[in-house]
Amino acid sequence: MYQIRTDLALETQEKMQEDHVDLKGVRFLEEKVDRNLTISTVVIETENGARTMGKPKGTYITIEAGNMDEEDEDYHREISLQLAKVIEKLAHTKKDEISVLVVGLGNRDVTPDALGPRVVDNLFITRHIINEYGKYAFGSEKVNRISSIVPGVMAQTGMESLEIIKGVIKETKPNLIIAVDALAARSTKRLNRTIQVTDTGINPGSGVGNHRHGLNEKSLGVPVISIGIPTVVDAATIVNDTMYNLVTALTQSEAFESMGNSLEKLNDAEKYELIRELLSPNLNTMFVTPKDIDESVKRLSYTISEGLNIAFMKGVQ
Amino acid sequence: MYQIRTDLALETQEKMQEDHVDLKGVRFLEEKVDRNLTISTVVIETENGARTMGKPKGTYITIEAGNMDEEDEDYHREISLQLAKVIEKLAHTKKDEISVLVVGLGNRDVTPDALGPRVVDNLFITRHIINEYGKYAFGSEKVNRISSIVPGVMAQTGMESLEIIKGVIKETKPNLIIAVDALAARSTKRLNRTIQVTDTGINPGSGVGNHRHGLNEKSLGVPVISIGIPTVVDAATIVNDTMYNLVTALTQSEAFESMGNSLEKLNDAEKYELIRELLSPNLNTMFVTPKDIDESVKRLSYTISEGLNIAFMKGVQ
Amino acid sequence: MYQIRTDLALETQEKMQEDHVDLKGVRFLEEKVDRNLTISTVVIETENGARTMGKPKGTYITIEAGNMDEEDEDYHREISLQLAKVIEKLAHTKKDEISVLVVGLGNRDVTPDALGPRVVDNLFITRHIINEYGKYAFGSEKVNRISSIVPGVMAQTGMESLEIIKGVIKETKPNLIIAVDALAARSTKRLNRTIQVTDTGINPGSGVGNHRHGLNEKSLGVPVISIGIPTVVDAATIVNDTMYNLVTALTQSEAFESMGNSLEKLNDAEKYELIRELLSPNLNTMFVTPKDIDESVKRLSYTISEGLNIAFMKGVQ
Amino acid sequence: MYQIRTDLALETQEKMQEDHVDLKGVRFLEEKVDRNLTISTVVIETENGARTMGKPKGTYITIEAGNMDEEDEDYHREISLQLAKVIEKLAHTKKDEISVLVVGLGNRDVTPDALGPRVVDNLFITRHIINEYGKYAFGSEKVNRISSIVPGVMAQTGMESLEIIKGVIKETKPNLIIAVDALAARSTKRLNRTIQVTDTGINPGSGVGNHRHGLNEKSLGVPVISIGIPTVVDAATIVNDTMYNLVTALTQSEAFESMGNSLEKLNDAEKYELIRELLSPNLNTMFVTPKDIDESVKRLSYTISEGLNIAFMKGVQ
Repeated sequence: MYQIRTDLALETQEKMQEDHVDLKGVRFLEEKVDRNLTISTVVIETENGARTMGKPKGTYITIEAGNMDEEDEDYHREISLQLAKVIEKLAHTKKDEISVLVVGLGNRDVTPDALGPRVVDNLFITRHIINEYGKYAFGSEKVNRISSIVPGVMAQTGMESLEIIKGVIKETKPNLIIAVDALAARSTKRLNRTIQVTDTGINPGSGVGNHRHGLNEKSLGVPVISIGIPTVVDAATIVNDTMYNLVTALTQSEAFESMGNSLEKLNDAEKYELIRELLSPNLNTMFVTPKDIDESVKRLSYTISEGLNIAFMKGVQ
Repeated sequence: MYQIRTDLALETQEKMQEDHVDLKGVRFLEEKVDRNLTISTVVIETENGARTMGKPKGTYITIEAGNMDEEDEDYHREISLQLAKVIEKLAHTKKDEISVLVVGLGNRDVTPDALGPRVVDNLFITRHIINEYGKYAFGSEKVNRISSIVPGVMAQTGMESLEIIKGVIKETKPNLIIAVDALAARSTKRLNRTIQVTDTGINPGSGVGNHRHGLNEKSLGVPVISIGIPTVVDAATIVNDTMYNLVTALTQSEAFESMGNSLEKLNDAEKYELIRELLSPNLNTMFVTPKDIDESVKRLSYTISEGLNIAFMKGVQ
Repeated sequence: MYQIRTDLALETQEKMQEDHVDLKGVRFLEEKVDRNLTISTVVIETENGARTMGKPKGTYITIEAGNMDEEDEDYHREISLQLAKVIEKLAHTKKDEISVLVVGLGNRDVTPDALGPRVVDNLFITRHIINEYGKYAFGSEKVNRISSIVPGVMAQTGMESLEIIKGVIKETKPNLIIAVDALAARSTKRLNRTIQVTDTGINPGSGVGNHRHGLNEKSLGVPVISIGIPTVVDAATIVNDTMYNLVTALTQSEAFESMGNSLEKLNDAEKYELIRELLSPNLNTMFVTPKDIDESVKRLSYTISEGLNIAFMKGVQ
Repeated sequence: MYQIRTDLALETQEKMQEDHVDLKGVRFLEEKVDRNLTISTVVIETENGARTMGKPKGTYITIEAGNMDEEDEDYHREISLQLAKVIEKLAHTKKDEISVLVVGLGNRDVTPDALGPRVVDNLFITRHIINEYGKYAFGSEKVNRISSIVPGVMAQTGMESLEIIKGVIKETKPNLIIAVDALAARSTKRLNRTIQVTDTGINPGSGVGNHRHGLNEKSLGVPVISIGIPTVVDAATIVNDTMYNLVTALTQSEAFESMGNSLEKLNDAEKYELIRELLSPNLNTMFVTPKDIDESVKRLSYTISEGLNIAFMKGVQ
């Protein structure tokens, strides 16, 4: 069956509802924090639900912040605070102190894929200081060990991110991995306005750079929380979607009533088949991104860093 | 009337032919240099031709190099040599020595818009050396004065590129401006595979960053040769084009014969009207670009720099 | 006579006092803002004073912030506020609204010379918005027009900064130039801990990159306030100074009383002559800089940007 | 005993000879390749020799290229070829195909420390292609697997380079590590003009960033060849050295004959004691580097990359 690509569980859930698919095994909650800030939770509870959604079992929390693509310090501070709460909720570690490895995925040299590396630039890193001077260097009873790595992309390293991170985990034994990555959405209106936090890690085919292997508790042996912001839409997706709307419009339009005879009967698969024939094969290697992506990535990476700093450095100044 | 956006005169000319528009006042030549290298020339000779083409009078030379998006040192060397010839042809300066200001347009922080700034990074700059030590510093009778500037983008400078460049010209009095910019094409298959060189300069609405004012002999008082490579397609263009193909397919398809009654009668304007209603307004602020754009821009900026170095530093080592 | 290089009027004044030079025509004030923040003012009032100091007539205000090389958000905020006050004092423009061009001097690719370009990255730029939408876009009666430029270095542009800036001024007609540059100090203990603000502009031989031509009211026709932080010490200076101390120590040391016969009689010029013979000529092309210069430049450029944003965007949010 | 810091075995050997230290257990060879290219080999053969030299047993090959700090494509090509030969000699692997991990040490954001990361940018990376398509993708019988990593610096990652690299080795099992790093020399005249290649790896206290733990066959379990270019001199070293020369000059100078009584009797340790008292403690956190370091690092990183590409990709195009 045809699959429109999106890394956002929220979009998949919406699409399923549109298509009247039965979502047994999937729970959905929505909380309006304020006029411009909504937090939605999709919980995929069963293997059945996972199959229907095309995403692994787990919790997917989405912060939708309609003005996040704009400059507004107070608003971004509020988002960082909400993000910190979400991270704390999903991390639910019992240990007094934890050791966290933050992984900045993506390619620093491609603007919309640079989110992960740039988040890491602004983190408050403590592991080496605690290792050398003890946690009392921070004048606090409880300090988490924060470390970070930017594994780079395969064309530059010759290695999968998974290989590098597995190795680093073996040597430094963190309790928790935070993987930050730029995502692909289905709709341009979500770009740079949505943060997804999940406890399922990063899974094959997700992210702007389309990871081939997953980074999750199963592959790494440590819980993995992933944080992502959609910064691109696949070019094929955007064309597909608009064309799908066109075909749908044509089948419903009164002006084209006579077409009803033929188009009306097309099911989804047939519609997509019709579309596919017209699509340039080049589109598969292309993405769509906003023109002001540099400013957005700069701002958003800072907002995520702050969320992480708040979540893990609480009580330390 | 609806205008599909492209900065390539070659694509406009192709579209006109497709649509059987009469191209009086426009000359077209094509030379196959070898299997993977074609040089086309579009000369817009009359004001009438300019109006039809939607581009100013002048010569537009396009180097189409099918494998330019790949790594192949010898092939890129060949392209640089051809580019140097094209530049020399359009520059046709009689003066023994010229003073050239190379302008790297675009935003260094947005990968597909970074072509201009990166070309400037690899240029052989001589003006300051000649000013200080004389041209004999190069052990040559004839040395051109090469200078360069990266004006930046308006959001960072608060100024139009035109203002900055006009000012620099007043102070340093070059005989020739070379403006390098990343372009928008209509078709993804041209991205990173085409170099356009023209003697008409940069005109409003062109370039990835969509300049508001032209950089041309009229606005600057000095001849302007512009060199560009298409690195993006406007998102609206790509969707429009594919949908146009879909509507056209539907009107012609035997399978949808019955639709013929209504769709067949739609003219171009009506088709685009139908499409426009389905398009997300977000698309106007989005572009489509290849996923390997960082490697391509790195490679292509070097190929253009080399072309400029060959064209202007001939006889000097 | 031998001249130790420093861009800080405060250091020159100190050296003069050490050497018991008569500083007629030079006024000196010092204000302790708090334990870790001192503001000193050197006013060179006469041509005589200027000759003695080896610096042009004018006001040199130095903010000495002992902990400025460390991370402490509140402290840096306080420095930005003080800097804003100093800028307002030296700018003393009567006009209701002014048009300010901020020039980021230096080489973005050499860490200790990147201060100027990086200050510009964080500025709040308004000129293009006011030009397009009017000042009411900011919901304020009075808004200054802020623009900025990073002219780059001569090896990359083939042009003097002076040429580029003169041209830009002719086209955009600002009322005030703010030139930001990394400076050379005489003493390593001032590096990254001192901000000098002057109304004399940038003068030949100053800055890390050693400008050949001045940027000042005389050369530009517009008042120029320059803001600088010393990030390097000339390698020759540091060696010279330490050796001078050694020779002085030897001439005074009881342990070396017998040397007194010969060394005691050496005057300054002779001491420096003795030293010069031992210095490697390589040293003239070298500078000394702290190992954590990247973090410092990142932090300090932000502190200066904030000072400028506060000074010029007051009343606008 | 006082230790002047240098990462170059050649400089240590020279210093020992100056000081007439017995260098039993250390062999020295010099080969003049041509007027501007000398290859010296220091072999530390015994533990005794290692103790005297303050460096581990092994082979240290130094390519001295007097004009390497200048732009000259042919000369740099020649250096790359010589470097390739030296690498092949030290690698002396018997295996038909090897798997090489190139490690780019240092801080990309500090110009003179960016050599390692920048070398990695220009490498020809093959491991991922061979893993996916087999070596026949290269149309060659024998292809080495090249991978690379830039571990970053501890302040950014919270981890030692050693930890990261050990982890990556466990996962990807290379046969050979090439560690590239910017070095500290004793003399400014060697900066950017010398390449040291050794089979002893990187050892504590070496490199611009002063590694705390070694990267060598003992710590990593795999042979480690390190390649370094000195780009800085420690500020304390340069001052010390010049002052040492001064004191020595004073003790020998006829003009200061009378001083002979006291200074003549000072041994090295006493001279350094005298100097130390005059040195600013700040100097320990400072380095000296050439003003054109950005151009040099750009050029030299390319020269090393090419040497590695030639050494490992022979027979592949």
